[in-house]
Amino acid sequence: MNSDLEVHAADPLGMEPDEMRRLGYRVVNLVVGHFETRAVGPASRTGTPVDLYGALGGALPEDPGDPDEVLARLVDFALSHMRHTGHPRAFGHIPCPSSFAAVLGDWLATGYNAPASAWAMGSGPTAVEVVVLDWLRELVGLPAGTEGVLVSGGSMANLTAFATARAACGGGVVYMSDQAHAALRRDLFALGFAPRQVRVLPSDDNLRLAPRVLNAAVAQDRAAGRKPFLVAATAGTTSSGTVDPLNEIADLCAAEDLWFHIDGAYGAPAALCTAGRAALAGIERADSLVLDPHKWLFQPYDAGCLLIRRPGALRKAFAIDAEYLKDTGSACGEPDFRDRSLELTRRSRALKLWLTFQIYGTARIRDAIAHAMELAEFAENFLRQNTTWEVVTPAQLGIVTFALQHADEHTHAERAAAVTASGYATVTHTKLKDRSVLRLCITNPTTTKKDIVSTLDRLAQKPRECLPVVR
Amino acid sequence: MNSDLEVHAADPLGMEPDEMRRLGYRVVNLVVGHFETRAVGPASRTGTPVDLYGALGGALPEDPGDPDEVLARLVDFALSHMRHTGHPRAFGHIPCPSSFAAVLGDWLATGYNAPASAWAMGSGPTAVEVVVLDWLRELVGLPAGTEGVLVSGGSMANLTAFATARAACGGGVVYMSDQAHAALRRDLFALGFAPRQVRVLPSDDNLRLAPRVLNAAVAQDRAAGRKPFLVAATAGTTSSGTVDPLNEIADLCAAEDLWFHIDGAYGAPAALCTAGRAALAGIERADSLVLDPHKWLFQPYDAGCLLIRRPGALRKAFAIDAEYLKDTGSACGEPDFRDRSLELTRRSRALKLWLTFQIYGTARIRDAIAHAMELAEFAENFLRQNTTWEVVTPAQLGIVTFALQHADEHTHAERAAAVTASGYATVTHTKLKDRSVLRLCITNPTTTKKDIVSTLDRLAQKPRECLPVVR
Repeated sequence: MNSDLEVHAADPLGMEPDEMRRLGYRVVNLVVGHFETRAVGPASRTGTPVDLYGALGGALPEDPGDPDEVLARLVDFALSHMRHTGHPRAFGHIPCPSSFAAVLGDWLATGYNAPASAWAMGSGPTAVEVVVLDWLRELVGLPAGTEGVLVSGGSMANLTAFATARAACGGGVVYMSDQAHAALRRDLFALGFAPRQVRVLPSDDNLRLAPRVLNAAVAQDRAAGRKPFLVAATAGTTSSGTVDPLNEIADLCAAEDLWFHIDGAYGAPAALCTAGRAALAGIERADSLVLDPHKWLFQPYDAGCLLIRRPGALRKAFAIDAEYLKDTGSACGEPDFRDRSLELTRRSRALKLWLTFQIYGTARIRDAIAHAMELAEFAENFLRQNTTWEVVTPAQLGIVTFALQHADEHTHAERAAAVTASGYATVTHTKLKDRSVLRLCITNPTTTKKDIVSTLDRLAQKPRECLPVVR
Repeated sequence: MNSDLEVHAADPLGMEPDEMRRLGYRVVNLVVGHFETRAVGPASRTGTPVDLYGALGGALPEDPGDPDEVLARLVDFALSHMRHTGHPRAFGHIPCPSSFAAVLGDWLATGYNAPASAWAMGSGPTAVEVVVLDWLRELVGLPAGTEGVLVSGGSMANLTAFATARAACGGGVVYMSDQAHAALRRDLFALGFAPRQVRVLPSDDNLRLAPRVLNAAVAQDRAAGRKPFLVAATAGTTSSGTVDPLNEIADLCAAEDLWFHIDGAYGAPAALCTAGRAALAGIERADSLVLDPHKWLFQPYDAGCLLIRRPGALRKAFAIDAEYLKDTGSACGEPDFRDRSLELTRRSRALKLWLTFQIYGTARIRDAIAHAMELAEFAENFLRQNTTWEVVTPAQLGIVTFALQHADEHTHAERAAAVTASGYATVTHTKLKDRSVLRLCITNPTTTKKDIVSTLDRLAQKPRECLPVVR
């Protein structure tokens, strides 16, 4: 630390540039190698606490370690014991087939440590975020003038939407169906909404929020002197991919003067392709819309997005004012993103999205989404042709749910667990109202029909016949 | 998209591995080049909306672009127009001298897309987070058994702390000084606290939260039938680096049965070195503590940390339960981090910290923090020896504030803006109660004494004499 000399070390903790490059190339090789060979390795592997803490734990290290040994340990233990949600047979939850161009964009944001808090802090990263948000707005069909912000994921995006709507309209009762994501309730309670202000309405036989039921609940609340405030529709439920009747709910919200929120965290990107756009009719009428690029826009974690139709509403909810920030207030009318969510210091999540759209082009992304939706339809048709199975909900935005004939929840859980534990694929089970189902979520365009058929074949077998796959 | 073949594309959007490697190396070269040459370029540059949107904007691109041209555009525009908070003369706000080992760790997390939501989703990344949180706990001296979670920064960490304390103790009135960060108020209002529940108390002449004032406020609230709940002390205020009297406040909290929260977002890592530990006496008594590794632990954005003394309190506040998550509940007693904050899908922020401590060792990090604190003392002494200046607050955790003799706020703002606009250094001004001051925050160990002296010399000059520095 040559504080008396002109020379500045490249790295604050003293790594030399040649070593930085050498280790950087090594990381590139590791990651590209992972992309190349992922499909022939397990989709998931879980370690034991003893093994993982044995390899990764211990006291705070006082002395420097050998970088190569340390890197190898991180890869061999931390990064080999997880669900690879970009694996072509990752069918559980909502997979995340992140693209390499997005990885490059995120690497640049991290390497340059790009701040996206305010125009004066990072005009370049701010401009990229403005551009990307406008692309996402266009993608779902919201009007010009819509504002937005990138956050860490769907939970934070929904929370940010609810806080924004409350600041604009004063709060009141929120309505959603029993198929809405549990994180929405967690968000609302964290924001201080009381249990009586969060009404979870029974979904109809098609697992949708029925306008009739919604209308009755709103009327009941008004009669009881409560203030209806916001409807949280879902565009692609996590369990079955079902889309609430968005146009009808939009009509109801307009008539009743309610804020129309849509949680499209995983489903909204499907608006890019024709079939998805049809399934999502009415999405463009949202007052606020959540869309997670780290779900179905080929981005690595984390990238969530909130779009708000009403200009200035985000700023009204979140503008921060402090003496020590006065040097960085925007003088040119451009947004300071620290005033659009609860994050003040913010990493730039927009660079990776920008690079993805620029390098691949939207056409390829659209085709990839359409292709995955077709694969889910293939899965549905395959299931229908096989008497082992009963389709419970058809392919909707990449998700199909199904049941083994005469099977109960225990059997489904056991089958999903066995296939996942084998490493061949990750599969989850869920419940649709009281019905136990297995579930495939297919959003990865590199998934093959053979992947789907082989996974279903394995799910049809009793667990002991399911051989482990270890890389 | 060869859905009928065995072959799986490496990249979901079709980039070939050779091209992935080529572009990956290019990104490494760009980033290492940035580390190497950062000090000779400007500390900050701001673009105009016309230039930036001209280069980066336009319609959603339908067709693929030339990756090399696109990458170059991103670097030349987005990443060249920002504050480089790792520049040796980045003295504004809280700088972020991120280390290259941390960059490598984050690159691996992004490249492998490591999930840290639940043990069954990512046992490896979860284990790393458990290990790193325990290191951070040890660093500040909290007892074994303390739990934690990594979040996106100080704002989210403070919000998570307040929500946790409320779930544990039922809420009530929160106390803080007028020097506490404005983000704390934003957090509390977002959580639904009413203005009357947030008491901002006048700091004493040393800008500290005086126990006498705090005690009186608590007594007043009890007398009025309100429930005192939580004291938010600051360990390193953003304006001046001042540490509230932690031991005295801890005593008061113990006597009054209040939750003792400490916002040590930037200051807490100084506990690693002897001088910092002395300044932070009592930090180990916190019920909850916020510490941002992306401020003074050499991490790129984003990395915030919350530590909670009471085991189980985070889970009580945030546990989420949903049918479609049942496949991934922890069966081995290990934490599911999705149950410790509002994030469900979570990127792994722990890998970069783990790699930093492992590659450099704690000794080097400790020395780097101690060295920066000494540089701030050098700045203070230099200012004291120069009649142009008056030191307003001494060097405290790397921050020194000072005033030009007889200058008003306008003059200070103008001087800070001119030096920042020149690109030579970033400097901010602030107000300490009613006193306008300039401020240097020195946390980067690559800063030289010459950097400090030259920056102060430029601040002493009238703006027109301050020549621009352009790379």
